[in-house]
Amino acid sequence: MRVLSGIQPSGDYLHIGNYLGALRQFVALQEEHEILVFIADYHSMNAVRDGAARREFTRSVALDYLACGLDPARAMLFRQSDIPEVAELSWLLSTVTPMGLLERAHAYKDKLAQGQSADHGLFAYPVLQAADILLYRSDLVPVGQDQKQHVEMCRDIAQRFNHTYGEDLLVVPEPLIPEEAALVPGTDGRKMSKSYGNAIAMFASRKEIKKAVMSIVTDSTPVEAPKDTATPLFQLWSLFASADEKREFFARAGEGGLGYGDVKKDLLERLLAYFEPMRERREALAARPDEVEDVLVDGVQRARAIATPVLEACRQAAGLGRG
Amino acid sequence: MRVLSGIQPSGDYLHIGNYLGALRQFVALQEEHEILVFIADYHSMNAVRDGAARREFTRSVALDYLACGLDPARAMLFRQSDIPEVAELSWLLSTVTPMGLLERAHAYKDKLAQGQSADHGLFAYPVLQAADILLYRSDLVPVGQDQKQHVEMCRDIAQRFNHTYGEDLLVVPEPLIPEEAALVPGTDGRKMSKSYGNAIAMFASRKEIKKAVMSIVTDSTPVEAPKDTATPLFQLWSLFASADEKREFFARAGEGGLGYGDVKKDLLERLLAYFEPMRERREALAARPDEVEDVLVDGVQRARAIATPVLEACRQAAGLGRG
Repeated sequence: MRVLSGIQPSGDYLHIGNYLGALRQFVALQEEHEILVFIADYHSMNAVRDGAARREFTRSVALDYLACGLDPARAMLFRQSDIPEVAELSWLLSTVTPMGLLERAHAYKDKLAQGQSADHGLFAYPVLQAADILLYRSDLVPVGQDQKQHVEMCRDIAQRFNHTYGEDLLVVPEPLIPEEAALVPGTDGRKMSKSYGNAIAMFASRKEIKKAVMSIVTDSTPVEAPKDTATPLFQLWSLFASADEKREFFARAGEGGLGYGDVKKDLLERLLAYFEPMRERREALAARPDEVEDVLVDGVQRARAIATPVLEACRQAAGLGRG
Repeated sequence: MRVLSGIQPSGDYLHIGNYLGALRQFVALQEEHEILVFIADYHSMNAVRDGAARREFTRSVALDYLACGLDPARAMLFRQSDIPEVAELSWLLSTVTPMGLLERAHAYKDKLAQGQSADHGLFAYPVLQAADILLYRSDLVPVGQDQKQHVEMCRDIAQRFNHTYGEDLLVVPEPLIPEEAALVPGTDGRKMSKSYGNAIAMFASRKEIKKAVMSIVTDSTPVEAPKDTATPLFQLWSLFASADEKREFFARAGEGGLGYGDVKKDLLERLLAYFEPMRERREALAARPDEVEDVLVDGVQRARAIATPVLEACRQAAGLGRG
């Protein structure tokens, strides 16, 4: 199966909630599926108005994915704007997309509510997203519950286009709802999220990560007393321990004598050890920008080889070009 | 100055009102200006859902323009979809186009009122139209009063893009309001228009043209009586006569004895003679499709040479692609 995923170059840092909650599972799909990951720089134009920043953010996303184990020999990693054909397909799809479909889009309303300006690019976003998916004949699109509507819209648009110009032109994709992923609490106990300010950045310095770990909320239970392990600190710790380690550690917590400070120190070491290889890979790659660019160029070539016949068939069926 | 005009391949035949009222003046611009004419096949997707028909209509529009004297050695004639970069620029512009601007567009509301389906392509039309104009750094866009708003929207969009990404990226165009053109009455006396069913097709057979001319409305003034020359028949006749001929003929009409049937016969001969060279040119070209295709290929090459650096500068400024 072919699986497609896009990520906006927004300048957001990657945190351990992103990784353990989604990215790790996504990267693992490359073992069994053909994966395409595009860095959605066209989409980012709706929010990021600075060209130099966009270029920097785009590089950063590429580094994140490669550091997290995306294997460029298997997966195709590429910049959206390196295959501008997607904008052409987006126009073709626009002409069969009812306005009512777009007007019902939750994401548009949500983004306006978040203060983004009501520009046409934001409104037309689902059409370009449909083109992203359809241009590569994607079978599966991993989405969270909040993006499910976009895949449904894409399916609707693909069916309308096929119905108008030819039934086999576009593959109608399915959403891939991820398996129950680890719930990653933030330092304040709520779900880890950049917007809550409770996130632990994946590629931050040792000092910053230590500061974040030490700030994890705990109660005032004295060292000698038994500890409740159904708390954010123990939940986070559990994510980096084996089942055996977990059993033993939770038993100690139940007996009393285990201080929160010790748990935090142990968590910090586990966390650093876990992410160290990725951080090293990211730093090494960041020092070799040409190598990253080569990965993107290779990804573009392979993705374009899929896209070109799809678009050409659509153009022919729609009576565009020489014929 | 660079002048750009687009025409939709809608399948509509060209009538003498189109020619005398607009096309003749437009073609004459090639003497002094650099002219680009694109056949708007992307735009036509909002109304024409049949690929084979679109291709046929597109060929027909090319024949019409060449028959009417567009000189491919001067003007660039090309299919819109042969330069798909316009769709990419359209996305870039979308991200700086306020929804309010599009919501105020008269043409969208008018087309809905005419029964076109409310698809996103119709709503987004002014953005693609702005891309059409801006991609070629057009200075002037000939428009009727009803399309003036679209040039104003294009100016607004260009200014917003320049303001966001760099002041000299896009040329802000001016509308070119045509000089007072000949008023061409239809066979029923109203302005000649395909939608009124009162039009005389330019490239129809002699028989069809004769039928149309004979159907021009006249009153029941007897042959012997003086005729009112401020009537559709005389107005049409005047369009094909010199000032001297007009003076003499109108004097005869004032004296009486000139029958409407004679005027119609004379008009028919003048009309056929006037359009015969164009009709012959059209037929000759229709028999040599490769030659027409060569014209379009040449037009695309020259138009693309203008477009490529414009789009590349926009991409660079917006931080798209490798950089």
